Order: sequence, then C-alpha cells, then structure tokens
Amino acid sequence: MSRVTRADVARYAGVSSAVVSYVVNDGPRPVAEATAARVREAIRVLGYRPNVSAQALRRGSSRLLGHVVPDLGNPLWAEFSLAVDDVASRRGYGVLLASSEGGAGDEHRRIETLTARGVDAIIVTSVMARPDLVARAELPVPVVLLNTFFEVPEFPSLGVDAFGGAHAGTTHLLGHGHGPVGLVIGGESGELREQGWRRAAHDAGVAEGPIARGEFSRRGGYAAGLQLLGGPARPRSVFVASDLQAVGVLRAVFELGLRVPHDVAVVSFDGTVETEFTNPQLTTVRQPVAAMAEAAVARALDGGSAARQVLPAELVVRASCGC
Amino acid sequence: MSRVTRADVARYAGVSSAVVSYVVNDGPRPVAEATAARVREAIRVLGYRPNVSAQALRRGSSRLLGHVVPDLGNPLWAEFSLAVDDVASRRGYGVLLASSEGGAGDEHRRIETLTARGVDAIIVTSVMARPDLVARAELPVPVVLLNTFFEVPEFPSLGVDAFGGAHAGTTHLLGHGHGPVGLVIGGESGELREQGWRRAAHDAGVAEGPIARGEFSRRGGYAAGLQLLGGPARPRSVFVASDLQAVGVLRAVFELGLRVPHDVAVVSFDGTVETEFTNPQLTTVRQPVAAMAEAAVARALDGGSAARQVLPAELVVRASCGC
Repeated sequence: MSRVTRADVARYAGVSSAVVSYVVNDGPRPVAEATAARVREAIRVLGYRPNVSAQALRRGSSRLLGHVVPDLGNPLWAEFSLAVDDVASRRGYGVLLASSEGGAGDEHRRIETLTARGVDAIIVTSVMARPDLVARAELPVPVVLLNTFFEVPEFPSLGVDAFGGAHAGTTHLLGHGHGPVGLVIGGESGELREQGWRRAAHDAGVAEGPIARGEFSRRGGYAAGLQLLGGPARPRSVFVASDLQAVGVLRAVFELGLRVPHDVAVVSFDGTVETEFTNPQLTTVRQPVAAMAEAAVARALDGGSAARQVLPAELVVRASCGC
Repeated sequence: MSRVTRADVARYAGVSSAVVSYVVNDGPRPVAEATAARVREAIRVLGYRPNVSAQALRRGSSRLLGHVVPDLGNPLWAEFSLAVDDVASRRGYGVLLASSEGGAGDEHRRIETLTARGVDAIIVTSVMARPDLVARAELPVPVVLLNTFFEVPEFPSLGVDAFGGAHAGTTHLLGHGHGPVGLVIGGESGELREQGWRRAAHDAGVAEGPIARGEFSRRGGYAAGLQLLGGPARPRSVFVASDLQAVGVLRAVFELGLRVPHDVAVVSFDGTVETEFTNPQLTTVRQPVAAMAEAAVARALDGGSAARQVLPAELVVRASCGC
C-alpha cells in the first residue's frame, strides 16, 4: 500500500538497509537503542509499513509462535502465557495466543487454526492428562507440550516434577504432627500429585487422609473443601493440588467458621502470585514457570531431542501451613 | 513447502475449493460442522498447509488483530484479553497479544511492533491516564483505546462509566450509615473514580473520608490499606478503586486483626472473578467486559465514528459491604 521502501527509511535514518530490517524484525542482530529509536522515528515520519506477508514468503517463516493455553482466567495460565511471550519476543518472535478451554477436541482444533495462520511452531500448555492430538507426522509444524505431567508418545513435552512437589508439600504438612493429610485434587484418579501425596504418607508411616475431588477451579476447590472439612472427621491438614482450588478451600474454611492454620493447615500447588495475597498467605509448591517457558520455546524453535524434560518444584513456606 | 493444493483438499473432501477456503480462514461464510470436519480431515490426511503469507498478500489483510494489554497477571486484563479473543475469532480474526507492562513509551513501542507484523488494526487496553501514543495520522492501521476513562483526542476510545460506578459503590456504602467512606486508589489525583466517590459523599451530605494512594496492584492495595486502616481514625468503610487493590486491602484488614464487614465494610471496582472467592466475597462495581470487547473489536475492524463510547457499570452486592 505504502510506496515508502526500506531503503527510504535507511536513508532518512542514516543507517544501512539491514539495520532497518533488524529493527523491524526485532533481530536477528541487536541494534543500539539510540539507533533503533532513529529508525523508528524514520518509520513514523515516512509512514513506512513493512510488508510482512512478503517478508514471510521470502524467508519461509512467519516469525510467529502459536501458544494454546486453557482459560487465561487462571493466573497460572496467564503466567505461562506472559513467560512464553517474554522469551519469544526476546528471540524476535510474536506469539499468537489461542485459548483452548481445555475441552476434548478443542486443543486439536486450536492447533489446526494456528497452523492455518502460518505459525512456525506451536506450544500447547495443556490441562488434559492425555492431550487430544493427532499423530505428530500429520502436523506440519513442531508442537511442544508444556505443563504435561506425563510423557506423551511422539511429542516433546515438559512439565514440573509433580510427584516430587506433592511429596515435598505433603511431607511438610506431616512434619507439623497433625496426623493424616487430606487431599483436594481433580477428578482423575491416580495422577502424579496424588501419587506424591500418597507416597509421602507412606514414607512418614502415617495413614492416608481422605480425598475430595473437584474441578480445577476456585469453585471446584470450594465444593471439595466443604465436603472434606464439613464433617466431624475432618483432617487437621490438607494438601491442595492447585492454587485455584486452594483459594476455594480457603473460602470453604472461612464459611465453616474454621481458621487456617489453627484448625486446618493448608499447602497448595502452583505458586502463582495469588497465593501471596490470600488470608493467610499460602504455603505453596511453586512451579518454575520462567524456566519452563524458556525450555518450551527453545524446543519449539530449535528442535532437538524429543525426550521428556522434568523441572523441579520449589516449596515456598508462608503462613497457611502453621510454620 | 508442501505441493498439496487447496484443489486437492477440495477433491478429497468432496467440496468446492471455496468451502476449503472458508474452513481454513474461519470465514467469511459459515460451513456446516460436518462439512468442516471433512475438510479438516482432508487437510490432515493430505498434509495440506495453506500459504497464509500468500493469502495475506492477495487480500491485503492479515486477518490479525493486535491487542496491547498491560500485565496479564491482573485478572481484569486477562478477562479483557479473553473477551477480545473470543469476539475476534468469531469474526475470523486471530489476535496477536502484546504485553505493555504499562510503562511510558511502552504502549507506543508495542504498537510499532504489532504494526510491523502486519496486523489489520490494534486495540490498546490502557492503564495510562494519558496513553502515550503518536498522532493518529502517523499510524498505518486503526487504533482503538479500550478501558480509557477519558476522551483521548483523535482516537476512538471506550471505557466503563467510572464516575457513575464509583458514585454507585460509594453511595451503597454510605447507605449503611457508617459515616465517611475512605478511598483506596492510584497515585494520580482527581480521576473519575475519585470524582464519583467525592460526589457521592457530597450528594449524601456526609464528609469526605480519608484517601490512601498506591499502585494498582495487590501490593499497592495492601500498603494503602495498612496506611488507611492502621491508625485510630480509621473509616468504617472503604471504596477501593480496583479489585487487585481490594485483595490487598483485605490482607491488610486481616493482618490488623480487623474483620470485614464488621469493622470495615469494603466495596471494590472491576468485578473480576477473583472477587467471588475472597473472604468474605466482595461487593463490587462490575465492568461490562464482554460488551466492551465487542464494541472495541467492532470499532477496530469496521471503523465508524471516533466519538467516545461509555458503557455502564453494574453494582454486584455480596458480603463485604455488610448487606
């Protein structure tokens, strides 16, 4: 549309045409901030609009990374999304975000849409125990699974050490000497956080506490909390498999007229910023979100081994455990 | 890369080439789900990868909408982001999200980056009282400002009725008869929420309560809450200009050994989902996020008048006000 060319911009800014390209594309070479500012000024003054589609055709790359995330209303997915965006933009990539809502078939459809939009690779931050994906060979771009707890055949995947994290969180609660630790978790039986919780009881020689299952949401945690803590046989401490559910459990505790940690000690899993501002602040098993995003982007753009990568979780001790 | 053409896909699926295009581009015409599924299956089996860059060159449109948002860690921005994504995808547009961090000059840089990526239009969800933008004539694509409280010369903008919302929230607190209502708000003096709070006191014939200013963050609200409620002259009720700050105020109340609403009644502004799960649940002035996103996308893609659009807020009464 515009007749202004990159050469015009270069002339106006007093730089080479290549430097204009580095500024426009955020790379591949760094440009001093003062020079970049001069180029941006020239772009503005001249009204230059780079023809991105033509560029993409030429280099066979859109410099776009697709990212499929479940509901951004969950602070954990928002944090993953920000972290991926941050890493990608440092590499000169834009991120096309697609919200999957986590339903069956939905991730799959989102991947197809992103592929049709010409992304170079896709990161799928999945909530599905078994992501709903077509065979890898049928996908035209690399797909990397972020936040899966299990190995997924054919696909490079990475996630937090859910077993180890749950084990550490539960062991911490057991150390307070309140006996069996209850568990609030999602509907699917036997996943790694549950296994870690169970093993911790076994290792400590304490009986397993009761389990309440619910959606991975604030509402799901609230309902599970009422169920677990509303009866006379309530456990004195609870390990909650996600921050969102823990926020719901705190509401249940509050409505039952109980107090955390006096009546019920709580440790959650995820470590999003929300846990710093609950009352009381939540002791939590933190996922290494930045490191996971860094690793996922590297695997999506650079390829390499498809071996599964597991990153360690970190126990962050605050007030809800009774320390 | 792939030699498979759209015609091949059409033949395999038993549809016209146009129908393949509708499926690939999510429009402009609807396709029955069974037919779309057949087309997607054909795309998969044949390994067809549409050449998006060539398509974009042909039609002079990338079918991409840029969205500049502040920190997604704020549930309000996450909600706006989801809502814009939802509206855009129903119109066959993908959304390129750019996080602005809200610093001076940053929105401006993000707009340049998105423009360089060939988006057709840009929505800026701004936290700046005066968005830092270049003149409209120097921008090659339409820019619409979402969530601004003020008219911004040259730019189409829309936002919630902040004055009316703050007035309603404060009036509700005044109705409980606890006297002057305190205010927790951001650092800039005199904005519309503050004006609405002040006018409500005036209209009710009650003295203005004290003001504590802080960042629009959980931490900022916490510090402001300690300041406002930590002394002997604390107000019996507080209007808080954002949900995030209200979450921080609740933590301050908790740490001061006070109770909501018994010692301090609280009403917040924004109405994000987080307010349903605080203890107690927050009475809040809700922004019409979905309607705002709908309006912003329509103005970005369809143009029309640049007149400012103001949408009404809704008071949602829960427990924190003492009702």
